[in-house]
Amino acid sequence: MPVLAQLAAQVLRIEAGALSPAALSAAKHGIIDTVAVTLAGIGEPCARIALGTAGIAQAPGPCLVFGTEVRTSALDATFVNGVASHALDYDDFSGAFGGHQSVPILPALFALAEARQLSGPELLLSYLVGVEVEIRLARCVHYHHYDKGWHPTATLGTVGAAAAAGHLLVLDADGLTMALAIAPSLSAGLKANFGTMTKPLHVGQCGRNGLLAALLAEGGFDANPEVMEHHQGFFNVFNGPDRFDPAPLLEDWRPPFEIEAPTIALKQFPCCGSTHPAIALMLALAREEDIAADQVARIDILPHGRRLRHTNTPDPTTALEAKFSVQYVVARALLDGAVRLGDFEAGRIAEGEIQRLLSVTSARPHPELADDGPAQWGAEVRVTLNDGREVSRRTEHLIGRGGDDPMNRDEMWEKFLDCGGRVLAEDRLAALFDALWGIEDVRDINQITGLMEAQGRRTQ
Amino acid sequence: MPVLAQLAAQVLRIEAGALSPAALSAAKHGIIDTVAVTLAGIGEPCARIALGTAGIAQAPGPCLVFGTEVRTSALDATFVNGVASHALDYDDFSGAFGGHQSVPILPALFALAEARQLSGPELLLSYLVGVEVEIRLARCVHYHHYDKGWHPTATLGTVGAAAAAGHLLVLDADGLTMALAIAPSLSAGLKANFGTMTKPLHVGQCGRNGLLAALLAEGGFDANPEVMEHHQGFFNVFNGPDRFDPAPLLEDWRPPFEIEAPTIALKQFPCCGSTHPAIALMLALAREEDIAADQVARIDILPHGRRLRHTNTPDPTTALEAKFSVQYVVARALLDGAVRLGDFEAGRIAEGEIQRLLSVTSARPHPELADDGPAQWGAEVRVTLNDGREVSRRTEHLIGRGGDDPMNRDEMWEKFLDCGGRVLAEDRLAALFDALWGIEDVRDINQITGLMEAQGRRTQ
Repeated sequence: MPVLAQLAAQVLRIEAGALSPAALSAAKHGIIDTVAVTLAGIGEPCARIALGTAGIAQAPGPCLVFGTEVRTSALDATFVNGVASHALDYDDFSGAFGGHQSVPILPALFALAEARQLSGPELLLSYLVGVEVEIRLARCVHYHHYDKGWHPTATLGTVGAAAAAGHLLVLDADGLTMALAIAPSLSAGLKANFGTMTKPLHVGQCGRNGLLAALLAEGGFDANPEVMEHHQGFFNVFNGPDRFDPAPLLEDWRPPFEIEAPTIALKQFPCCGSTHPAIALMLALAREEDIAADQVARIDILPHGRRLRHTNTPDPTTALEAKFSVQYVVARALLDGAVRLGDFEAGRIAEGEIQRLLSVTSARPHPELADDGPAQWGAEVRVTLNDGREVSRRTEHLIGRGGDDPMNRDEMWEKFLDCGGRVLAEDRLAALFDALWGIEDVRDINQITGLMEAQGRRTQ
Repeated sequence: MPVLAQLAAQVLRIEAGALSPAALSAAKHGIIDTVAVTLAGIGEPCARIALGTAGIAQAPGPCLVFGTEVRTSALDATFVNGVASHALDYDDFSGAFGGHQSVPILPALFALAEARQLSGPELLLSYLVGVEVEIRLARCVHYHHYDKGWHPTATLGTVGAAAAAGHLLVLDADGLTMALAIAPSLSAGLKANFGTMTKPLHVGQCGRNGLLAALLAEGGFDANPEVMEHHQGFFNVFNGPDRFDPAPLLEDWRPPFEIEAPTIALKQFPCCGSTHPAIALMLALAREEDIAADQVARIDILPHGRRLRHTNTPDPTTALEAKFSVQYVVARALLDGAVRLGDFEAGRIAEGEIQRLLSVTSARPHPELADDGPAQWGAEVRVTLNDGREVSRRTEHLIGRGGDDPMNRDEMWEKFLDCGGRVLAEDRLAALFDALWGIEDVRDINQITGLMEAQGRRTQ
């Protein structure tokens, strides 16, 4: 039996009971957070250019481009919302996935649920399915897949989105197998384009492509159900012979599901997740050692080598460079005691005091954290004070907000307001937040998305 | 200077004079042939399902879905026409490209030229540019790229389509560099899906994605201009370290251009190009040795191993399987003295006499044609007659209609009528054929596409 036929059978065995209280809570956190960052991102240049492109979001349809008045087809809403959702790199992520598990899936599920007037519980279960497929697939191909240069959010997210959308469409076993078999032929995304607008473009594309695969399969389109294990299939072509293991895709399909795993976390800081351990260490140092920026003579940042490779930007000049600069965000954490959305806006990077801190900050891979060792999200930060005193903090673990340490409702609201406040009024946001917090009782997703519609002219 | 910035500079140095008489003739053959096969393919299930999918070809716009009454955005027309153009695998191809060079490019160029009311000469020159970029890129990565399992028509065609569309949009050097840098992040397509509807889907996607890259770049979108040579860029990720050579992309940009190379050929037969040498040998055998099917006791087909891998289908039952069955098409050539579009329609494959021939036909890789040798489009066909006599023919070369042996105008019209007759009346087709034959004098591409509009109801 082909791998994807077995996978489809596993997916179709998932029942509503899979949404344990822990899974429901994790799913709601992911959904609320994704809506927040999409509203924050819709005004960013990448999303505005995408939305302004001839032929994009001009097909008639009921699906909202979040935070605007534009309604269009599910495919186009998925594309633009997908670009917006990752525009700020502020969306949730997973160490096991090696990327961002929600943004490939949720724009497609929201749009499809709007178009077909589906409920909160239906969306929640399909979201669980999409995350499960994505992260299982990641276990088959990582970390070789990531190290090689693929952008897993996009390459694996395409398959996750097809699974989620196919599940929400209630495709039968053959149809779901076909949706899953079309998707790998649409998988794309190179890490060489990290740090540019093309990174969030990957996300818009992968969600749209996963949804397209599901819609085509619903219409009777076909593909090779052996596309994963075929000698010229996904595993061999993307990873290479002997660089994958199909087993994790199919074994042990039972609770707890991936969506509630402690390796999933929300971002506290609006920049690349690989910088977060160092930011958290600097915040702890400043708070616990009572250090002010003007007392500091030197900062040494020693992240795990894998984290530093794409965040080693000693002299950022643009917002995107600053988000991938571990030097900038650590210096900012020292200076302000926080890292906020506004810190990447024009002018902030050039400020005198942050430039002084950058001139005394250096980063290098931590010599004691082995490249293939377990502490791939470890880091150390050392601060030398003007008086010669040295203080440091070190962690062996990913720092994020999830698992045993999820954000509480107040913290969720704080991020939601910071993000959503860029396009919607606070009373609107409060109603939207409440509706999302109770999504398991929503009978038609349009009740939620209606609250995200901008009250004014088309904003593009 | 990044590879793609150098490439953009080379492209922008191309002037109208690049269209020598030989290049113009080759370009016109490619354009006429691509229009023909798109009209033939628009009614195929893959194109019909794509056109019937919610959100596809529903955006308003002036761009025609060939052979229908549907007019939509350039992006959507490119997608559906792209799927249709490759639906029958009857479109032109190139040995150097390892795939089909026109179908990734021309749907985007036609749609864009319609939307912006551009001329025949403008389209012709951008077509030359697209083919040049595609085939040069192929020389950088082949045949490892193809052997590994990538579908070059799609993976390399995305970049070719971006180059062609960017050129037609008259992007400046920076804009064209960005279009070219976005494209590799959208490149996709696995050979494991050959023989299914997803193969032509790759083509619709790659043309749309190349056009999307160009439109986004026109709007100010950015990407990494070093995306080809980056350690996690196209060359390293798609091919792997030491499995590519960037030089052919940039060196010797002068006539003759790739579009007029003898390695480009039109298909005489409506099936996979890898079967054509064997078909031509069987036609020659039957004609020159005066053999009828009922005299034949045994047929042995010995293609080059690379050609056989995806055409070794001894017992086809569907149209798609039959098109990738060297056994079926060779038997059909013997039986009918031709291989025509109708031969893949339902019922023809099950006919008694063809089934008898299939039962005495076998195929294996030619033992004297080395896997990495020069004769990669060689083949031998041996026929054993009922009276024990054995006859055979062998070729070391690609058999196709191009280079020194192009189809003449009458032969072009014959294929055009066979293909276009599926959706348009003969008088319409005659006027369209004449207009295409004189495309270098057409001031607005809408004068041509207007002739392709179906006169009746929307056909989906």
